[in-house]
Amino acid sequence: MASTAEHDAMRRALAVAANGPRGVNPQVGALLLSPDGHVLAEGWHRGAGTPHAEVDALSKLAPDAVRGATAVVTLEPCNHTGRTGPCSEALIDAGVARVVYAVSDPGDHSSGGAARLREAGVDVEAGLLADEAAALLDSWLTVQRLGRPHVTVKWAQSLDGRAAAADGTSQWITGPAARADVHRRRSETDAIVVGTGTLLADDPALTARRPDGTLYEHQPRPVVVGRRPVPSGAAVRRHPLPLATDDGQDLPALLETLRQQGVQRVFVEGGPALASSFLRAGLADEVLVYVAPVLLGGDRLSLRDIGVTTIAQARRLDVASTIPLGDDVLYVAALRQAQGPDEAQGPEEAPEEGDD
Amino acid sequence: MASTAEHDAMRRALAVAANGPRGVNPQVGALLLSPDGHVLAEGWHRGAGTPHAEVDALSKLAPDAVRGATAVVTLEPCNHTGRTGPCSEALIDAGVARVVYAVSDPGDHSSGGAARLREAGVDVEAGLLADEAAALLDSWLTVQRLGRPHVTVKWAQSLDGRAAAADGTSQWITGPAARADVHRRRSETDAIVVGTGTLLADDPALTARRPDGTLYEHQPRPVVVGRRPVPSGAAVRRHPLPLATDDGQDLPALLETLRQQGVQRVFVEGGPALASSFLRAGLADEVLVYVAPVLLGGDRLSLRDIGVTTIAQARRLDVASTIPLGDDVLYVAALRQAQGPDEAQGPEEAPEEGDD
Ligand SMILES: NC(=O)c1ccc[n+]([C@@H]2O[C@H](COP(=O)([O-])OP(=O)(O)OC[C@H]3O[C@@H](n4cnc5c(N)ncnc54)[C@H](OP(=O)(O)O)[C@@H]3O)[C@@H](O)[C@H]2O)c1
Ligand SMILES: NC(=O)c1ccc[n+]([C@@H]2O[C@H](COP(=O)([O-])OP(=O)(O)OC[C@H]3O[C@@H](n4cnc5c(N)ncnc54)[C@H](OP(=O)(O)O)[C@@H]3O)[C@@H](O)[C@H]2O)c1
Repeated sequence: MASTAEHDAMRRALAVAANGPRGVNPQVGALLLSPDGHVLAEGWHRGAGTPHAEVDALSKLAPDAVRGATAVVTLEPCNHTGRTGPCSEALIDAGVARVVYAVSDPGDHSSGGAARLREAGVDVEAGLLADEAAALLDSWLTVQRLGRPHVTVKWAQSLDGRAAAADGTSQWITGPAARADVHRRRSETDAIVVGTGTLLADDPALTARRPDGTLYEHQPRPVVVGRRPVPSGAAVRRHPLPLATDDGQDLPALLETLRQQGVQRVFVEGGPALASSFLRAGLADEVLVYVAPVLLGGDRLSLRDIGVTTIAQARRLDVASTIPLGDDVLYVAALRQAQGPDEAQGPEEAPEEGDD
Repeated sequence: MASTAEHDAMRRALAVAANGPRGVNPQVGALLLSPDGHVLAEGWHRGAGTPHAEVDALSKLAPDAVRGATAVVTLEPCNHTGRTGPCSEALIDAGVARVVYAVSDPGDHSSGGAARLREAGVDVEAGLLADEAAALLDSWLTVQRLGRPHVTVKWAQSLDGRAAAADGTSQWITGPAARADVHRRRSETDAIVVGTGTLLADDPALTARRPDGTLYEHQPRPVVVGRRPVPSGAAVRRHPLPLATDDGQDLPALLETLRQQGVQRVFVEGGPALASSFLRAGLADEVLVYVAPVLLGGDRLSLRDIGVTTIAQARRLDVASTIPLGDDVLYVAALRQAQGPDEAQGPEEAPEEGDD
């Protein structure tokens, strides 16, 4: 059972963890407590190549000040030697008597720290404020699980699935509330990817802006994919973050490059050709579809071929929410992965009555 | 001010009105009250060519039994000579002293009855239980206003606006709850129109069935449009009502024919070609769009060209409700008629920021 002092320490560890950057490595915080529950030191991880949170905290104390102490850490201490040594080893060497942590390390190479600590006779307790820690690490844990950044494919459409009218005009299908929502969500993502088709047609800024036009603090990185060059005067060149470009021929490789640069969450904002490629490749985890109450008909589809040839292959969505935004409705939905035959929705009527 | 007896009489008149058929003529009920508020007779209209409700009630009494009576009628007594004489004249001739009615007659030829009664010295009061009467006469009043039956265009689609997968399979895009809802709504309509494309592809029964397969009491008439013949073995030939066919080249004329046959409400149930023709011709009053949480991509669109060439011509919908049906969502929406420029949704951001 964790003590009150350990609870308080974990809350503080979560707060200092958030000082670190979201990136390739997790945001982690650690506190060292004396046997009677006083805070000896705190530390957090400042990003790849810098000391882990536990080591950061240890470094602030004289070696014998730590003997018999309790370490309170938001993530299971690691067990691998990377650019820094394993934290479990550092804690053992420092004479820490007890370790309390929130969530387990899901990494193939880094997990096992708790076992190693226990072998060395350290008292280990897992799961304290695990939900709070998991929320903080949400997108990092998702990257570990997926092996790539989390991909959201976003588009705006008429109710009948068009992204523009016949002449290509599309401003505006959706209203101000929907557009404001897009910008807010952009400010929570790490990169926005668009195809050269959209870049050349719409000259998007790819910034995350408040309704008054000011920039949100966190900006997504702009990424343009395609072989055609980005014009020198393109709005995206005035983005506060540097522009990344890619030919788009190998989308998994593009995502791996972004992951290595610390990108955990990607928005694919079209156009239809690029969005369809992500869906066809099974690289979309979530869709955000802003549906306007208009009908357009015609050829300007919001999606093209996504690789579905027969109804049984329909890409089913788990709709998390439908959110009214002015006159529009936002569908927030997860792509259901590989559907077993018994999950398929069975017909209730005889199939010869084909009047759906 | 209407008396309590007149209130009670109007409720009864509404009840007997509903005995009559829904058709070319309105459903109307009438009661005759003695000066002290006793019911002398009641009557209702049994359809085109038969006596109007007031005349039906008058016919049940000896001529001098009516003198000084009050007539309580759900619709303003008519003022034109059709297959029956004008009711206002019949009431005057019978010596009726007072007339209380619920809703005014909107007809060009038939209205004016109240004025004629007043000229003849009859005491006239309008508007008693007008809402109830308008609800009963809803679709008849709509036909008077539109000059044609009310048209609902219904389809089922994936979120991205497809009616089928690439190979043409579409059973089932939507689930059992959506399909049950379609059948219930069919049972409240007077005719279902489909194109020969749908007829030949799906062989629909066009009946309104409960989930257990039994038929609803009120069945829509089946109408198939197109030049290709309806196969002798087609399911629609087993419909309890006779099949109507039309080449579909003149949709207003088709609607006029149906109106003359007493059809007040029409469901256009596709396919995409026919639905688009109704929308393009401005002949759709309402859409019912059953949206399934799936993505299909590809070419099988739920609508084709509906005559919109630029975004300002988008057919805007007034969404009356979005109804969850199992995993699906039904959009019930009215087509907004001719939109003035100041009703258009203005951009909130500078249009050069084209990243909607
Ligand atoms: N309603 C909406 O939400 C929305 C959103 C965005 C855009 N739009 C509209 O959509 C239109 C542009 O869309 P679009 O479909 O024509 O173009 P797009 O998807 O923006 O760009 C397609 C281009 O991207 C490049 N590309 C690189 N890798 C690709 C891959 N893996 N898959 C597909 N494309 C790849 C190719 O260009 P290269 O030849 O250069 O290699 C390709 O031609 C514009 O009219 C725009 O207004 C609407
Ligand atoms: N998802 C849904 O809600 C839904 C609903 C219905 C159908 N469907 C699917 O849609 C497909 C069939 O649709 P479709 O678009 O090919 O055919 P359709 O709209 O059912 O029928 C089109 C045919 O109707 C005739 N027609 C007569 N007047 C017309 C007019 N004014 N405008 C247009 N057509 C007229 C023409 O045939 P003639 O050559 O004989 O004159 C025309 O080729 C099937 O695959 C079916 O499963 C889906």
